[in-house]
Amino acid sequence: MTFGVDAKGIYPIAATPFNADMSVDYVSVDRLTEFYQDAGATGMTILGILGEAQKLEPEESLTIARRVITRSRVPVVVGISNPSFAAMRRLAHEVTDAGAAGVMLAPASHLRSDEQIAAYFHHCVEAIGPDVPWTLQDFPLTLSVILSVPIISRIMKEHPSCVMLKAEDWPGLEKISAIRKLQAAGDLRKFSILTANGGLFLDFEPERGSDGAMTGYAFPDMLVELDRLHREGERDAAHDLFDAHLPLIRFEQQQGVGLAVRKYVLMRRGAITSDVQRSPRSSLTPTGRSEVDYLLERLGRKDPRARL
Amino acid sequence: MTFGVDAKGIYPIAATPFNADMSVDYVSVDRLTEFYQDAGATGMTILGILGEAQKLEPEESLTIARRVITRSRVPVVVGISNPSFAAMRRLAHEVTDAGAAGVMLAPASHLRSDEQIAAYFHHCVEAIGPDVPWTLQDFPLTLSVILSVPIISRIMKEHPSCVMLKAEDWPGLEKISAIRKLQAAGDLRKFSILTANGGLFLDFEPERGSDGAMTGYAFPDMLVELDRLHREGERDAAHDLFDAHLPLIRFEQQQGVGLAVRKYVLMRRGAITSDVQRSPRSSLTPTGRSEVDYLLERLGRKDPRARL
Amino acid sequence: MTFGVDAKGIYPIAATPFNADMSVDYVSVDRLTEFYQDAGATGMTILGILGEAQKLEPEESLTIARRVITRSRVPVVVGISNPSFAAMRRLAHEVTDAGAAGVMLAPASHLRSDEQIAAYFHHCVEAIGPDVPWTLQDFPLTLSVILSVPIISRIMKEHPSCVMLKAEDWPGLEKISAIRKLQAAGDLRKFSILTANGGLFLDFEPERGSDGAMTGYAFPDMLVELDRLHREGERDAAHDLFDAHLPLIRFEQQQGVGLAVRKYVLMRRGAITSDVQRSPRSSLTPTGRSEVDYLLERLGRKDPRARL
Amino acid sequence: MTFGVDAKGIYPIAATPFNADMSVDYVSVDRLTEFYQDAGATGMTILGILGEAQKLEPEESLTIARRVITRSRVPVVVGISNPSFAAMRRLAHEVTDAGAAGVMLAPASHLRSDEQIAAYFHHCVEAIGPDVPWTLQDFPLTLSVILSVPIISRIMKEHPSCVMLKAEDWPGLEKISAIRKLQAAGDLRKFSILTANGGLFLDFEPERGSDGAMTGYAFPDMLVELDRLHREGERDAAHDLFDAHLPLIRFEQQQGVGLAVRKYVLMRRGAITSDVQRSPRSSLTPTGRSEVDYLLERLGRKDPRARL
Repeated sequence: MTFGVDAKGIYPIAATPFNADMSVDYVSVDRLTEFYQDAGATGMTILGILGEAQKLEPEESLTIARRVITRSRVPVVVGISNPSFAAMRRLAHEVTDAGAAGVMLAPASHLRSDEQIAAYFHHCVEAIGPDVPWTLQDFPLTLSVILSVPIISRIMKEHPSCVMLKAEDWPGLEKISAIRKLQAAGDLRKFSILTANGGLFLDFEPERGSDGAMTGYAFPDMLVELDRLHREGERDAAHDLFDAHLPLIRFEQQQGVGLAVRKYVLMRRGAITSDVQRSPRSSLTPTGRSEVDYLLERLGRKDPRARL
Repeated sequence: MTFGVDAKGIYPIAATPFNADMSVDYVSVDRLTEFYQDAGATGMTILGILGEAQKLEPEESLTIARRVITRSRVPVVVGISNPSFAAMRRLAHEVTDAGAAGVMLAPASHLRSDEQIAAYFHHCVEAIGPDVPWTLQDFPLTLSVILSVPIISRIMKEHPSCVMLKAEDWPGLEKISAIRKLQAAGDLRKFSILTANGGLFLDFEPERGSDGAMTGYAFPDMLVELDRLHREGERDAAHDLFDAHLPLIRFEQQQGVGLAVRKYVLMRRGAITSDVQRSPRSSLTPTGRSEVDYLLERLGRKDPRARL
Repeated sequence: MTFGVDAKGIYPIAATPFNADMSVDYVSVDRLTEFYQDAGATGMTILGILGEAQKLEPEESLTIARRVITRSRVPVVVGISNPSFAAMRRLAHEVTDAGAAGVMLAPASHLRSDEQIAAYFHHCVEAIGPDVPWTLQDFPLTLSVILSVPIISRIMKEHPSCVMLKAEDWPGLEKISAIRKLQAAGDLRKFSILTANGGLFLDFEPERGSDGAMTGYAFPDMLVELDRLHREGERDAAHDLFDAHLPLIRFEQQQGVGLAVRKYVLMRRGAITSDVQRSPRSSLTPTGRSEVDYLLERLGRKDPRARL
Repeated sequence: MTFGVDAKGIYPIAATPFNADMSVDYVSVDRLTEFYQDAGATGMTILGILGEAQKLEPEESLTIARRVITRSRVPVVVGISNPSFAAMRRLAHEVTDAGAAGVMLAPASHLRSDEQIAAYFHHCVEAIGPDVPWTLQDFPLTLSVILSVPIISRIMKEHPSCVMLKAEDWPGLEKISAIRKLQAAGDLRKFSILTANGGLFLDFEPERGSDGAMTGYAFPDMLVELDRLHREGERDAAHDLFDAHLPLIRFEQQQGVGLAVRKYVLMRRGAITSDVQRSPRSSLTPTGRSEVDYLLERLGRKDPRARL
């Protein structure tokens, strides 16, 4: 299994677990790596926004990356977005040397025009080198940058090392169809599309042509099953499973506080020891926590994975 | 029933129906007015973003407002947000004269600092007059303006004529709790909170202290029932009803294309004759339409209202 | 003299004068119209941002436009930017009927990607009709929209009725050169370029290929002389004149308060009776006013036009 | 001379010189350090936006900081703004250990509401520690964050270690007056105000109450003289000197390309060996370069410092 234009399946976005003293909890890093693989993930994505990458020292980032890559039997993709091209270059080279399958790049949030966006990714690829496979993150809700189909096509044309679109525009269904149509017509080269945006449209995205998901929902095992049902054409079963999880998916997809929800659920599932975050953080209040508990309890009535 | 700090229940945001030649379909305006009231709405909100207000001529806006107000047995709130204070003033006076219960104001999207926001609403109230009741729209996802609890408190303190917060921040649950806590402590005066953001968190918002909803979901009758279940303390039943509708709620809440979904569902429910929008518009493709049909069919298995 | 791709010279952006009771001061409107023409302007631009267009009632806008057009011996361009396409359409048709030479359109401030921008101007031209000549306002500092050379080229290609670029990007000199180079190579059709951004780079812009200026500096007579010096190749004299005015130009170019400065200088020059603005406004404090007086006094030592 | 609430005079923002192979040119770093001190600067500011801080490796930043601090006879302030609080903390501690007089902090560009801004600086001070003196950068033109007088007051109240406001709002004169008025009334504690925004309003800012300048204009010796003239009450002479330099000041203040202009002028003045920048960069075209040469030639007629 490699990370390339044929990539398919589920690449969970991994959280970064901390100890109570805010040091990295490497025991939980290992456990989480196992958790995602036991869930049936076809790859892993680390050091993304969800992974609190910006709160890590460079040495910590590298240590985590090496640790996950060493233990993982599936390809590992590493988030390297950084306003400093110098820092981006360094981390790309280090994790590639350590065995990362590829990297993830998001547009810097000040970008607006297509020319600025195209120039930005030229600088990125200049920094990381033309041989490192990467996935392009299209997430305007958080990143504030609009990537239209023409500019995505241009980036894909100009950078053969971009092998994947992490599609999390919103609304995004028609965009997937538009890209797949261009590819079918031979007007755009092949690349993988994994969807994200918290998984909020995972009931329809595969029907539109996505190859899987790269998102952090705390039930990656459900994502794997959902992916399988879609592939097998079990439409009603896929939607039934998705609908059962949608109340929690929606709750986790909230900006900011969503990370707190995810870490809490991962903790309740035993995948990490503590749900603490480094500062700055959005924490769950006791009321918020009881709302998640209630959602889990309700979900547990339909899906045994949620009986915790 | 009046529109004031005690307002409760469901104030649907009304769509504006057009004929095939893009003229206003006044027959459907009437039918829609009946539809919302038959659904049990306690009020109506017209000429909002959802109502394509910016695509209407001033005379059309006024005619629609007069028509709805005349036929409505419940209070009618009219959206008057406009970058021109002159236009805002005029429409406020005209619809108030016509019998509107109140108006709705959103912050202009260029506002950033608290001082700018406070100044803006001073200009608004100067324009519409201090006696016109209004609801403050807090919708950063679409409006790009962040209203923190302190600036909301300041606006409420400085403008006694603001009787309601249309709460659609995201995430927004803790904000409702924070406001209710300030009010309970006597540090903030009383006002109504109706929630919106497409209804995406209507399962928990009433538990946090909201008084109802002001949103455009195409099943206002379900919103009314949900509101009743919450008031009666039927937590599980409320969540069951909400969860059944969540896949469609989520689909309608998409920015841009959400309006197309709503008008299509309203048309399928017989509330309006045609789902056409004036330009510029985001339309439903045939695939999108079939996805909505599938969602309705699935919903119909659980809720007879969706058997169309 | 017509308003077309060959337009040259100075098109002052006109202020809108008010009486002390905030009604439009039509006597000053007439006087200002004479003032600009006496200064040697080749055209006039009214109802722009500087003209407080958003604070006018639709009837006032139309009355002002008719009044200026009737008295003007030079082409009049009318700003019609409006978030409502319905309002834009109406004003475009009304002022064209009244004899306006053309209209001015700015991109709506929420636009980001090239696709959004292209779609927006399609909607604009659909609204105003394909036969109304218009100038494209490229002013990111105020409008928050980035128009790259490729998207400007695309707009020019798609809309033959766009006859002019109001170039006020910042920095903007290389952009003018880039456009002129494309035109010289035959890769872009001919259109006029008038510069603005308060005139802050009017010493170099004509050397880069601009055809004149469309800006509101309160000494349009100086702009006309500067334009003449540039055309006659009097480089040093042009720069001497510009440098003498630069301290005031820079002071007037301030966002927000710049309008107060301009109206004050226009009042001191006798072009309008009062410098009051409608609300919301940024006023000159007494200190600010004395700073302008000092700048005028210093300017008067070099340019008799400033001896007031 | 220390860096504290009494700081006065000129703190040039230093460029970072590179060799042709893009390594840091430490010989020029030393020469530039001498250049600023020979010019009479009372302090130095390094690793700001102008200093291409985001293009430096962490080790390079630290080496430059140590080198400048070691050679400097005046206080050195170090820019440490970084989206990663981990990186910010580290650099703050390292340069403080190395003898930096203080650090400079800018608000992250995604901040909007006053609450977000206040929270951000709490996280910053938590990261760098409460004993490190810092200057607050108020530069909305580049940073996209609005700091109103109330939020500046709040930051100053909550963080005694903030000793200075780097005032570069635009327009900014009234803001300086407003702050000084609050301080005079005893409603706001004392702190230094140095102005910047390229020096575009240095003719009036000291009259409004500023204590000096912290900007990168390539004639720091002129800034020192201007500061002296202001202190001595030589108003006309101060304005004469400023006006002579304004055409170049204005040219250098251009966003993006301004850095290219500054490095070119610094090179022509012999302060650095090469004007190359690391990627990404905005370069001067030959035409742009000849414009700067012409501005220098014209300036040289009035100020011998510009006869190069």
